[in-house]
Amino acid sequence: MIDFMSEVKKRKKVIDSKLEDLFKDKDHLLWENMAWYPLAGGKKLRPFLGMVVCGALDGEEEDALIPGLSIELIHNFTLVHDDIMDDDDLRRGRKTLHKKESLPTAINVGDALFALAFRMISEMDEKPIKIKRILFEISNAVLKIAEGQEEDMCFEKTFDITEDEFIDMIDKKTSYLFQAAARCGAIVANASEEQIEHMGEYARNMGIAFQVQDDYLDLMGDETGLGKPVGSDIRAGKRTMMVIHALQNLEGQDKERLIEILEGKCTKAEVKEAIRLLQKNDSIGYSRRLAEQYAHKAKEQIEFLKDNEQKRILIALVDFMIERAK
Amino acid sequence: MIDFMSEVKKRKKVIDSKLEDLFKDKDHLLWENMAWYPLAGGKKLRPFLGMVVCGALDGEEEDALIPGLSIELIHNFTLVHDDIMDDDDLRRGRKTLHKKESLPTAINVGDALFALAFRMISEMDEKPIKIKRILFEISNAVLKIAEGQEEDMCFEKTFDITEDEFIDMIDKKTSYLFQAAARCGAIVANASEEQIEHMGEYARNMGIAFQVQDDYLDLMGDETGLGKPVGSDIRAGKRTMMVIHALQNLEGQDKERLIEILEGKCTKAEVKEAIRLLQKNDSIGYSRRLAEQYAHKAKEQIEFLKDNEQKRILIALVDFMIERAK
Repeated sequence: MIDFMSEVKKRKKVIDSKLEDLFKDKDHLLWENMAWYPLAGGKKLRPFLGMVVCGALDGEEEDALIPGLSIELIHNFTLVHDDIMDDDDLRRGRKTLHKKESLPTAINVGDALFALAFRMISEMDEKPIKIKRILFEISNAVLKIAEGQEEDMCFEKTFDITEDEFIDMIDKKTSYLFQAAARCGAIVANASEEQIEHMGEYARNMGIAFQVQDDYLDLMGDETGLGKPVGSDIRAGKRTMMVIHALQNLEGQDKERLIEILEGKCTKAEVKEAIRLLQKNDSIGYSRRLAEQYAHKAKEQIEFLKDNEQKRILIALVDFMIERAK
Repeated sequence: MIDFMSEVKKRKKVIDSKLEDLFKDKDHLLWENMAWYPLAGGKKLRPFLGMVVCGALDGEEEDALIPGLSIELIHNFTLVHDDIMDDDDLRRGRKTLHKKESLPTAINVGDALFALAFRMISEMDEKPIKIKRILFEISNAVLKIAEGQEEDMCFEKTFDITEDEFIDMIDKKTSYLFQAAARCGAIVANASEEQIEHMGEYARNMGIAFQVQDDYLDLMGDETGLGKPVGSDIRAGKRTMMVIHALQNLEGQDKERLIEILEGKCTKAEVKEAIRLLQKNDSIGYSRRLAEQYAHKAKEQIEFLKDNEQKRILIALVDFMIERAK
């Protein structure tokens, strides 16, 4: 039996120390601000994933460090820009960059993190043919994230969203960077195309499972376990798998009422009413089961791996991603 | 004698057609908005420069097309984000993206152009070792632009700027992408390290000459030749080489008065007064001569090239960059 969290912490220590080196001795205000998000904590699950995938395929975990760090910087750049787009105040318990500094500085710092992520790849001590491949994986992922972001913004203006469209959006917005991390981990481990594909699909399914479950936990989780009040997504009118399933299955007044609640500034009583409507056709149960199906699919993708410590960590990671707030 | 503008137009046609292909048949709102700046005109001088440098070094100009297009996309991404930072309304005679769509969309579109620029590099039909090198040149340039942007924002809060600090800032903010274009053009032409260095220095000096001269023209140019009223930089309190030189050489009341004018919302009479103060120690003449010195240094860097059409175009490009509004 592996102790998942201690495996995470072990690698987080290596990752954090490399990140600190990256921003050390940089006598420039830009660089100070570039370090604000990456050094503010977080589990560093993306580089962790890349390293474990690499080890699972008999590579040296350390070889996956640079692509992992690059992806972590990309993740942080998307957080800096997302926080501007959502005008959020806090991130990891600290002021968001555009609140701490200014909108122009935050845009610029995000761009700089993005550039640094790619410069790191160009300086990797790795065969150029692999660097070319890693560059494709990471740049393609950022493009998909941007597409997902645009789709998500479009969804805010409509309730006419199919399940497939929704899964496609969260695949791009949430899963793609995990996919890139897993694929790059496999690439540096000299994996075959088929193995790279499996590891990517593992991460894709896991990412979707995570996002669907995350929305479920917002509604049904224990308030103390999460950082936000239960039902905040309903109050924000967020499109989730539960909402999309309900809107496809509710009829007449029920459907109209759910839309009305999601569009308004709703009271606690209305949040409860919305939950009742989501339960009417078992939309909540459907969403929870869907997350479990994606988690199951993720695990299927790595059945081919020979049994080693890293394989067990990858299985535990899937469980962690959908159980973390239970 | 070469006809410089017809050389520009000849290559612009090829570049624009490739850009159009890039955004064609993309059934996604994101991609429509991504095309908004790149397809809105402009001379495409950065890819032009890369192609001509490549040809000057006996390479096939077409080989420099992809790095050039990538740099053009990077240039456009910086314009999208700069327009947000400055909250500008118009770009190339059309609405800026954040005015046409929204702030979140514009941030996201900029990010997507950035990602596409790197994905194009990863898909280049070129030796991976060269791709690795090109990746470094371009990502490093974006990092320098971000540093320059941050320095420029800091300068807005102080008048205590040395000439070296100012030149360093415009080197990063304006020159670096020209440098990257020239260096990538040399790299694909299989140039030696020394040749790559010369072409980079050529572009660096040209970029600085351009920016110093651009500020000069804002003050002394013919209103009809430029798109903005003469003296707009004084009204905006912009730090220019002329202002920095004047502040270092004026004393007592004169210096205080110039700062007062630059800090306030000044009248037409005050713009004229500021110009008189800038003329007192020949700061305007100094700036104009400095631009010419940098232009001269740029030309010196390419003396080693054998005489061919592209060499003559590179010389004409320097003249164009500092004479364009005469």
